[in-house]
Amino acid sequence: MDNSTFVKAYAPATVANVCCGFDVLGFALDQPGDEVWARKSETPGITISDIQGIENLSFDPKENVIGVVAQKMLDTLGVSTGIELQLHKGMPVGSGLGSSAASSAAAAFAVNELLGSPFSTQDLVVFAMEGERKASGSAHADNVAPSLLGGFVLVRDYDPLDVVPLGVPLELYCTILYPQIELKTSLSRSILKQEIPLNKGIRQWGNLAGLMAGLLKKDYNLIGRSLHDEIFEPERSVLIPLFKQVKAAAIEAGALGGGISGSGPSIFALSASLEKAQAVKEAMEAIYAGSGIETKTYVSQVPEQGVRLVAQSTFQPVLPL
Amino acid sequence: MDNSTFVKAYAPATVANVCCGFDVLGFALDQPGDEVWARKSETPGITISDIQGIENLSFDPKENVIGVVAQKMLDTLGVSTGIELQLHKGMPVGSGLGSSAASSAAAAFAVNELLGSPFSTQDLVVFAMEGERKASGSAHADNVAPSLLGGFVLVRDYDPLDVVPLGVPLELYCTILYPQIELKTSLSRSILKQEIPLNKGIRQWGNLAGLMAGLLKKDYNLIGRSLHDEIFEPERSVLIPLFKQVKAAAIEAGALGGGISGSGPSIFALSASLEKAQAVKEAMEAIYAGSGIETKTYVSQVPEQGVRLVAQSTFQPVLPL
Repeated sequence: MDNSTFVKAYAPATVANVCCGFDVLGFALDQPGDEVWARKSETPGITISDIQGIENLSFDPKENVIGVVAQKMLDTLGVSTGIELQLHKGMPVGSGLGSSAASSAAAAFAVNELLGSPFSTQDLVVFAMEGERKASGSAHADNVAPSLLGGFVLVRDYDPLDVVPLGVPLELYCTILYPQIELKTSLSRSILKQEIPLNKGIRQWGNLAGLMAGLLKKDYNLIGRSLHDEIFEPERSVLIPLFKQVKAAAIEAGALGGGISGSGPSIFALSASLEKAQAVKEAMEAIYAGSGIETKTYVSQVPEQGVRLVAQSTFQPVLPL
Repeated sequence: MDNSTFVKAYAPATVANVCCGFDVLGFALDQPGDEVWARKSETPGITISDIQGIENLSFDPKENVIGVVAQKMLDTLGVSTGIELQLHKGMPVGSGLGSSAASSAAAAFAVNELLGSPFSTQDLVVFAMEGERKASGSAHADNVAPSLLGGFVLVRDYDPLDVVPLGVPLELYCTILYPQIELKTSLSRSILKQEIPLNKGIRQWGNLAGLMAGLLKKDYNLIGRSLHDEIFEPERSVLIPLFKQVKAAAIEAGALGGGISGSGPSIFALSASLEKAQAVKEAMEAIYAGSGIETKTYVSQVPEQGVRLVAQSTFQPVLPL
């Protein structure tokens, strides 16, 4: 691509943990998501020229996840191409929806396209993980992997990294309620006990195995029976106002199950049809109505595809994003 | 069926735990296994008229698992049919191969056939579990369920019982080495810690999720990568002489992976072909050669079918078994 070419990639929000899959399982939404625009630049190094949709994010490429991801890719390839990046945040940060992961995944995909696709999309997981390391101090993959690969993705292990996309088309719809309270991942993580009772561990991995079987066999009833977390949800949900009521209302309205999205405060519910997911959204919203806490809600299919190219042109756009 | 009819059922040995699936996963072998012969009898209640292939098992139907299972079925149906049973043990007890489960499963299936199949094979799990309660004090299902249902079976939960046969045909072959040492399940269980470190729990359920995905997607490489147990195997394997060497030799000879069968002392290894499983058998045997410990070895496909009827006749046989 010549220097006048730009590419724009979109990467979706993600739900990590998924009840019983703490630290190993995540799935993609179709929306919301982030966009990263990229083009080659005469200026050496990484430049971030615009950030939209959010205030107070750093333009310093060493401090912004999209810059960190792009730089890691250049370093790995051993090239010093100048790259200009722009970020359009389409989702709230600190929501438990994998916001930094979506930015990182979109940056990795856009830069890869710009450089002539030296990496496969699966290869990009390790680069997007560097964005997570920057954002949270931990290079975890359970958000970036589904944001890149779509659907449900298992991160079996990190040593070495083993990312397993389930790769089955599913008729699953996710409803998200994001209560706009501040909840730091570090706090949500720090309250977890470092030892778990054996009997709870057994039930947890029984449920995760059930969830895997349900997803791979498309047994929606089994998926619902398996969506439990008796270890982390009881500890973490106390940080999320009305959590129990929202979850109960979602299931009452027809959801298969649900829980905390990532480390919260967003609450997710999975349903077997779009109609149910819409009804679940109304039921979840009704619990927060009058609580004084503002909410955002989203309804989205769990898509087969994650990150994607949304624009590519050799014409410099007037409004790139 | 009239009173001169007899049935004979065969139920196979099973491997429970399967490395990362402690207490929730098991699979069936094709052999070895136990046979239970049953016919209606003029004598009220359950009678055990013969036991072959083993010494010192009780003929008291309240003390022998086959009698306990049969009685539970009669009680549930509210009938008082007299039933005569015979047991042919085709496998060692206390081996970690689900010996009591195989007897219980064969008894449940034979009695169900005799009574005109009032229960489905899946229904029989709860009756066979009563045999496990008698044998070990715990009504666990991770041996009886695969012995009845074949293949790999997940016991997702007990409250309520949720038994999930994976139901995929697999080209998987199991090699078993049974070192003939005495190892009580109660000892093997008592040495386990009742708390597990969170980081080990995460790796364990990541591996179990990987194993489920590998089995359901028939990804044999993923099955191999997932066959790890960093929690229980290090604690239990010290009770099994030469365990590490046998496991390493099995993998060196081409096995996908392996571990302790149930609570031991048998060691299992899974391979993707019969030829590999045979080579693995020789490699495992070579480690024990000259150790002074006698061994039995088995090579078996992981079959789609578990328990089955092997004979049915209206003629009273001279040699019933």
